[in-house]
Amino acid sequence: MSIKPLILIALGGNALIQKGQKGTAEEQFANLKVPMRQIARLSRNYRIVITHGNGPQVGNLLLQQESCREVPNMPLEIIVAMTQGQIGYMIESSLDRALMEMGVTTEQLFVSLISYVVVAERDPAFQNPTKPIGPFYTAEQARGLPYTMVKTDKGFRRVVASPTPLAIVEHREIKKLIEMEFIVICCGGGGIPVIRKERKFRGVDAVIDKDLASAVLAGEINADVFVIASDVPGVSVHRGTPEQRVLRKVPTAEMERYLAEGHFPAGSMGPKVEAITRFVKASGRRGIICGLEDIERAIAGEAGTEVDRPTEREHA
Amino acid sequence: MSIKPLILIALGGNALIQKGQKGTAEEQFANLKVPMRQIARLSRNYRIVITHGNGPQVGNLLLQQESCREVPNMPLEIIVAMTQGQIGYMIESSLDRALMEMGVTTEQLFVSLISYVVVAERDPAFQNPTKPIGPFYTAEQARGLPYTMVKTDKGFRRVVASPTPLAIVEHREIKKLIEMEFIVICCGGGGIPVIRKERKFRGVDAVIDKDLASAVLAGEINADVFVIASDVPGVSVHRGTPEQRVLRKVPTAEMERYLAEGHFPAGSMGPKVEAITRFVKASGRRGIICGLEDIERAIAGEAGTEVDRPTEREHA
Repeated sequence: MSIKPLILIALGGNALIQKGQKGTAEEQFANLKVPMRQIARLSRNYRIVITHGNGPQVGNLLLQQESCREVPNMPLEIIVAMTQGQIGYMIESSLDRALMEMGVTTEQLFVSLISYVVVAERDPAFQNPTKPIGPFYTAEQARGLPYTMVKTDKGFRRVVASPTPLAIVEHREIKKLIEMEFIVICCGGGGIPVIRKERKFRGVDAVIDKDLASAVLAGEINADVFVIASDVPGVSVHRGTPEQRVLRKVPTAEMERYLAEGHFPAGSMGPKVEAITRFVKASGRRGIICGLEDIERAIAGEAGTEVDRPTEREHA
Repeated sequence: MSIKPLILIALGGNALIQKGQKGTAEEQFANLKVPMRQIARLSRNYRIVITHGNGPQVGNLLLQQESCREVPNMPLEIIVAMTQGQIGYMIESSLDRALMEMGVTTEQLFVSLISYVVVAERDPAFQNPTKPIGPFYTAEQARGLPYTMVKTDKGFRRVVASPTPLAIVEHREIKKLIEMEFIVICCGGGGIPVIRKERKFRGVDAVIDKDLASAVLAGEINADVFVIASDVPGVSVHRGTPEQRVLRKVPTAEMERYLAEGHFPAGSMGPKVEAITRFVKASGRRGIICGLEDIERAIAGEAGTEVDRPTEREHA
């Protein structure tokens, strides 16, 4: 059995497509070099699981679907599955390349796997869809479409439910792969959302927050460190005021207070802080939010925002 | 260690989208019931690896790409990766459902994984692309596109190379998963084609025949039975003549002679017969071509065309 500590690294969508980019394959492969070179080095001393976002890729596929009347539209569960294939391949091949560049001669085992994530059929999110996805529509286009729509400054947009992830269906498989020292790429885009009907799973039109799904997985696999890496170097409080500051080490209780006070925007930093705090509180292990270029330094305790393990008293 | 024999089942594209269908998600899930119920039953007595085609799904994604100028086109390697995600999910969830319907209470392990397949950079197919993919174009449209085109009755069409598969990059991973009794879904669409540059892999714009890739995999994993299941019940010779007949059991040498005599159309039955014959000749194990509704009966020796193991003398 391995004694290397286990890190779960959740990569933000901007690990592949950065702001202002359209997302060519070249751009996505180039962007991945920054996190993948670090992960390749980390794999010497840690077992690694990688999860990732898929927002821009889902947006692009939906836009292509809408532009083409000849091909039947795929439901969101299948769009998510497609992005797991696409991004899983890009991450796996970029990491393979980074390992080769390091001159790694041992034969590291890899796997990128399709993952579904169970949500509750009665999750209130299904009554109140809030997550905007896909292209913008004119009022006239919006009337003809069978979606829940919201009006925005740029037009109408489809909103879907973003239910709470409960369990990763493949968690037993993922645990076995980790035991065998595979680097595992999974839970892409928060996973393909499924509900359980009796004992059968059924896909649903929803998207799952990838940081919350990653927190569930981090708990299931007993990760020693859970890292969320995106385009911000850490967690800021009092944003837009003279008191604004980036947090470095924060006790769980203090972070929960900031969350409750509304310091973090919903749909971006909010779920990240919630995901990390939940994990640290439940497991007593390390949780970090950092920039994509700072993954190694953050794990060494030199960058990012770390939610401090609860003291004995808090944890009890 | 398990002593269940190992079957590799290669599913034709029509396991998901049948002739005349556009390929809605509902159609694809409905079609999958036929092979998946059989595979669920077979999993009691056999270890199972499933590979699959992706022709119609690739065609649909290319058509969507061409219809949308706002989103950058993805190269073929990434389109193949997307279909591995999509079809891997559909197969895995359909098989899971079929097992649940059978009342299987043991917890079967599954994995659908992204696979790349190595081809030679100097494969002559790159000088002479022959595999038609994607939509039809007018002469004018065709002139503006950076593809090799062929003229057909219905217009111009892009052709890409279909190089010979040499090795499945993830074969070590797949072997480990089989040892642990995972049902493995892999090598979708013949795999993501990559060439090896020094020690690094690089994706190439090509498609690999899924039956030939499956034959390579069947050899690498030492499959006991290799089954190619599609929309034809078996292999016919002397097609279109009064002597036409479906073969039932054929010695390898006889099948090779039919191949050489041109009994089988290129791009459809040709590669299937070639794949099965190569596998049986190299391994001395069972190889079968059958209809999707006949997988169980074919494995029981009651349907399909089986290429007979070579006699001691032939094999030596």
